Amino acid sequence: MAMKQTSQPPVRSFAPGEVKITGGFWKNKMEKNRRVTLPLEFQRCQETGRIDAIRQTWKPGQPNKPHIFWDSDVAKLLEACCYSLAARRDARLEAKVDEVIALFAAAQQTDGYLNSYYTTVEPQNRWTNLRDNHELYCAGHIIEAAVAHFQATGKTTFLDAACRYADHIATVFGRGEGQKRGYPGHEEIELALVRLYYATRQRRYLDLAEYFINERGQSPHYYDQEAVARGENPKDYWLKTYEHNQAHLTVRGQKKPVGHAVRATYLFTGMAAVGGATGDKSLITACKRMWKTLTSTQMHISGGIGQIARNEGFTTGYDLPNESAYLETCASIGMAFWGHRMLDWEPDSAYSDVVEQAIYNGVLSGVSTDGRSFFYGNPLASHPGFDGNGNFAGEGYHYRRKEWFGCSCCPTNIARMIANFPSYLYTSRGKELAVHQYAESVGSLEVAGQSVTITQTTDYPWDGDITLKIEAEKTAIWSLALRIPGWCKSAKIRINGRKFDHNPALSKGYVRIKREWRSEGVVSMSFAMPVERVQAHPAVRQDAGCVALRRGPVLYCLESADNGSGLRGISLPADPKFKTVPGRGLVLKGIPVIHMKATRVKPAAKSDPLYASFGNWPRVPCTITAIPYHLWANRAPGEMTVWIRQD
Amino acid sequence: MAMKQTSQPPVRSFAPGEVKITGGFWKNKMEKNRRVTLPLEFQRCQETGRIDAIRQTWKPGQPNKPHIFWDSDVAKLLEACCYSLAARRDARLEAKVDEVIALFAAAQQTDGYLNSYYTTVEPQNRWTNLRDNHELYCAGHIIEAAVAHFQATGKTTFLDAACRYADHIATVFGRGEGQKRGYPGHEEIELALVRLYYATRQRRYLDLAEYFINERGQSPHYYDQEAVARGENPKDYWLKTYEHNQAHLTVRGQKKPVGHAVRATYLFTGMAAVGGATGDKSLITACKRMWKTLTSTQMHISGGIGQIARNEGFTTGYDLPNESAYLETCASIGMAFWGHRMLDWEPDSAYSDVVEQAIYNGVLSGVSTDGRSFFYGNPLASHPGFDGNGNFAGEGYHYRRKEWFGCSCCPTNIARMIANFPSYLYTSRGKELAVHQYAESVGSLEVAGQSVTITQTTDYPWDGDITLKIEAEKTAIWSLALRIPGWCKSAKIRINGRKFDHNPALSKGYVRIKREWRSEGVVSMSFAMPVERVQAHPAVRQDAGCVALRRGPVLYCLESADNGSGLRGISLPADPKFKTVPGRGLVLKGIPVIHMKATRVKPAAKSDPLYASFGNWPRVPCTITAIPYHLWANRAPGEMTVWIRQD
Repeated sequence: MAMKQTSQPPVRSFAPGEVKITGGFWKNKMEKNRRVTLPLEFQRCQETGRIDAIRQTWKPGQPNKPHIFWDSDVAKLLEACCYSLAARRDARLEAKVDEVIALFAAAQQTDGYLNSYYTTVEPQNRWTNLRDNHELYCAGHIIEAAVAHFQATGKTTFLDAACRYADHIATVFGRGEGQKRGYPGHEEIELALVRLYYATRQRRYLDLAEYFINERGQSPHYYDQEAVARGENPKDYWLKTYEHNQAHLTVRGQKKPVGHAVRATYLFTGMAAVGGATGDKSLITACKRMWKTLTSTQMHISGGIGQIARNEGFTTGYDLPNESAYLETCASIGMAFWGHRMLDWEPDSAYSDVVEQAIYNGVLSGVSTDGRSFFYGNPLASHPGFDGNGNFAGEGYHYRRKEWFGCSCCPTNIARMIANFPSYLYTSRGKELAVHQYAESVGSLEVAGQSVTITQTTDYPWDGDITLKIEAEKTAIWSLALRIPGWCKSAKIRINGRKFDHNPALSKGYVRIKREWRSEGVVSMSFAMPVERVQAHPAVRQDAGCVALRRGPVLYCLESADNGSGLRGISLPADPKFKTVPGRGLVLKGIPVIHMKATRVKPAAKSDPLYASFGNWPRVPCTITAIPYHLWANRAPGEMTVWIRQD
Repeated sequence: MAMKQTSQPPVRSFAPGEVKITGGFWKNKMEKNRRVTLPLEFQRCQETGRIDAIRQTWKPGQPNKPHIFWDSDVAKLLEACCYSLAARRDARLEAKVDEVIALFAAAQQTDGYLNSYYTTVEPQNRWTNLRDNHELYCAGHIIEAAVAHFQATGKTTFLDAACRYADHIATVFGRGEGQKRGYPGHEEIELALVRLYYATRQRRYLDLAEYFINERGQSPHYYDQEAVARGENPKDYWLKTYEHNQAHLTVRGQKKPVGHAVRATYLFTGMAAVGGATGDKSLITACKRMWKTLTSTQMHISGGIGQIARNEGFTTGYDLPNESAYLETCASIGMAFWGHRMLDWEPDSAYSDVVEQAIYNGVLSGVSTDGRSFFYGNPLASHPGFDGNGNFAGEGYHYRRKEWFGCSCCPTNIARMIANFPSYLYTSRGKELAVHQYAESVGSLEVAGQSVTITQTTDYPWDGDITLKIEAEKTAIWSLALRIPGWCKSAKIRINGRKFDHNPALSKGYVRIKREWRSEGVVSMSFAMPVERVQAHPAVRQDAGCVALRRGPVLYCLESADNGSGLRGISLPADPKFKTVPGRGLVLKGIPVIHMKATRVKPAAKSDPLYASFGNWPRVPCTITAIPYHLWANRAPGEMTVWIRQD
């Protein structure tokens, strides 16, 4: 395949240490993450044996048998801690991190291999089941954590271990004599190796990532061969189809996202990262096709993906169930990862809008406001008695967040996502600095070969006014590319107090302000943020006749805590009047909640029949309250719905 | 427990030989059943080894290993054939039936035991797993078939075999020394033994039925003991709860229908039958409680029950999914069985209305118009790509009826239901003859000690005009109890041409015309049958904002074959005008279909976004067509919906 190098200068991202959140929405989330979530997750990893497993002293018959994905949980937690350390030094936390890293380093085998499960439980079976057993996936997470540790602390212990492991993997896998032509059943290592490449500038890591991506889905099929080698019939694959692993076809031959949603986004993130690093446009083209199909036919309005629980993944276009939607927290996070990497190719709000949509809705719903509990699935409707997948779970059951899971990928993933949020704000390339996300912050950035400090003052996402103070080392002509959010119908921009007509300069959702920037400049933006009713495409049968409420990037929902039961019986009038008021109580204090007049079906009497002639249950006027979707299930349990019937 | 005998004279039912369908809707169904379905099912039983299994010559390693429920399939087919023979002699069919009966008779063991699976496959394990293995269930179906054979042909071979088997079972099970205190995991034998009691007048069969019912759910729990005896831990029960078998509590202690829907209805039918035969009112009281709860909180508008596929059974009240509804054909049939037995206690349209609702909708949807294919599940909405349980089954998939199933209970059950429909029309007790169902027919009945012939002339269910010609042997005072269907808002009755004000005589949905009936009388009834919009109870979240269309007892639906795709985008106006016109084409010829004006969402362009501001997809006027629900999936595949959005 063609491997044309682009002539574009490389894109520059900015890590949490370079962009500091200084207040508002994200300061709050990040502080909760640092002070509550990270210590809690350390504790859980300790209690459940995940950290002890790295000591590799487990013997058959002992409790807490290591599991194939445990290394990844610990590695993701370390990665989250490192982002947090980059944002704010914390000697105790750093000591804890270093302690676990020392365990990993000590556990590394002389050949570089590093996996708690295999070394302890099945030493004879290394690399024999890539399809199912998360071995390369865990390796990827160790690599990501090592890169984050190096970037946050400058220490190289973990990075060195990760390099030795990656080098070992490169000896095992490849197209050379005696090498296995394998690739991971759960993608992750591809994107991690690109990060390792950027951190070390060692091209061999990028080559290995590229190998994994290009080898995927080739014939004869590696998973078939591997199954036969294990003495199994490949047809007995429990998941029935390699679509589950996005390995049914080569990555460039795949027409639409299929299978397990988290795997899919991690693969696409890896493809975008490799394409961005090598300039292989065919990977970007494949990613763009997938992005377009996914976001225009398979994505829930929360930015959540993976419609059903059965395969934790995709069904078909326009099938967007609400109560039974899966929408794993990790999959929304995967959307953010992938969109973030697509932005490396070019600023395009097709990506950054979805990154925003996913983060403020399907991602953040994954953690409770107290930072202590987590959703795995994030349905868009919930009913007492039914679990997060819409299955009856018993009278009195309520779907709520949990402190931990057997397969606990989501809690650590959301911890690293929140801690790493600062990296989503900016990219620069050559003479252009792009602002993708808005948050109260100070960024020490680079553009056009000089240092630029951007201070964002804003109450985003609750308010659409943002002031960017731009302080440049020297006067120079460069371009500031500002995302105008897709949800915004009326944006106003002023530069140094003067109106700026941005429409002529708008391209792919970004306004480019190309000018001579001097030592100090102020850009103020005002994004109108009225409550908006959103309708789903007519092919989405599950949302027919309904609207969702959105204010800025934030999706709203109805909860019984405010509105009693029978939420599906509520209808909005043809022309509803929305009133945004500050919420009250521990969870909603100061957060904009939406009041509106509506009608609802009068509650039935206990003795009412199950069916009656139309008109038997009339509608009565009511006032209802909508709250941000990501804050649901933090108060009294009950019903929840995002989609509201519209007269 | 109290065992008061009632002073009521026994109720008299009338078999297919006594009530003959002479034309119209049911003649058509029964002829298709006789000419197409029964021969086809014989062929399938032959091809799949079900009939050969009765020869009990299968040896390990041979194909077509007998299965635990195979005897029941063959027995149900024989039973269906016998009803058909009672309605219309057919020497070839009778010879075929007798041939299989001879196989059963020859297969009977010297002690009376008769089960193809156990005798051939696990002879050492008889009666060791009542919980799971359908042994008593198969016995029940053999008994039912034998009774039907005796009643249709007067031959006693099969009845004698059934009696010997029942006598054997009575030695194995009971509260005596050395007996097992077991009862079936899948109920059926209880209702069958009552039929055997009525056919033979041998009280011991009623006693055995009563034993099975009274023993159910007692402590210590038999299924626990039985599991321990098999060397299993009772807690490892794969279905987790004895609610699945309605054995979690004693039958009188159970508060609401739980578990597997078919099992539940068969149990309740048995309870009603035993209660009716013994006069044990506590069983009737328990049945009434169950009936009330089920029909007022758990029954779909098609008369289908068992909301979900996972347990083929119940969830919770007011949870009535449409696309993912299970609603097994056998469970709707079970509702008809149960309601039929409740009517033995007293005429009450709470039962006969639901019998009608189930038969014309959830039962008859189970078979194709050509009589060749069958639904197991009968959802109330269907979408291309999704199976009958609402699970994604692949692009291009359509949920359609099948010719046979591995577990093929529904095809033979619907065959016997249709062949036995005549028995649902009448019951008599003492000086009252009750007419429960209406159909073009001639019934040779008995009331007040004399013969009465009732000739029904009607195009029911398509037309609400019914003429009953009543010819009595002698002049006598007796009461004719006529069901006024619950769906009917305006009924008119004339007796010998004279208006009869029936409202004062209406009790529990039946009009009692108590008079001196002479040699000939004519009662003509006119049930107004406009198209009606039905609304579900406000607690049914799945039907919020929707109506279903019903005309007489027949539920209607929308299909893509008439209305294109996007059925959920269709809304009825506030005051729709319905026009009933004769349908066209092979499936609908002459059948009333409903036309109406409505609005629907304008089809989207391929490039439309997944989400847009409200108003992006406006509604346009349209004319739509609804057809009887039970006829869906007989034409071009596509979407189907029963519930239609209502402005």
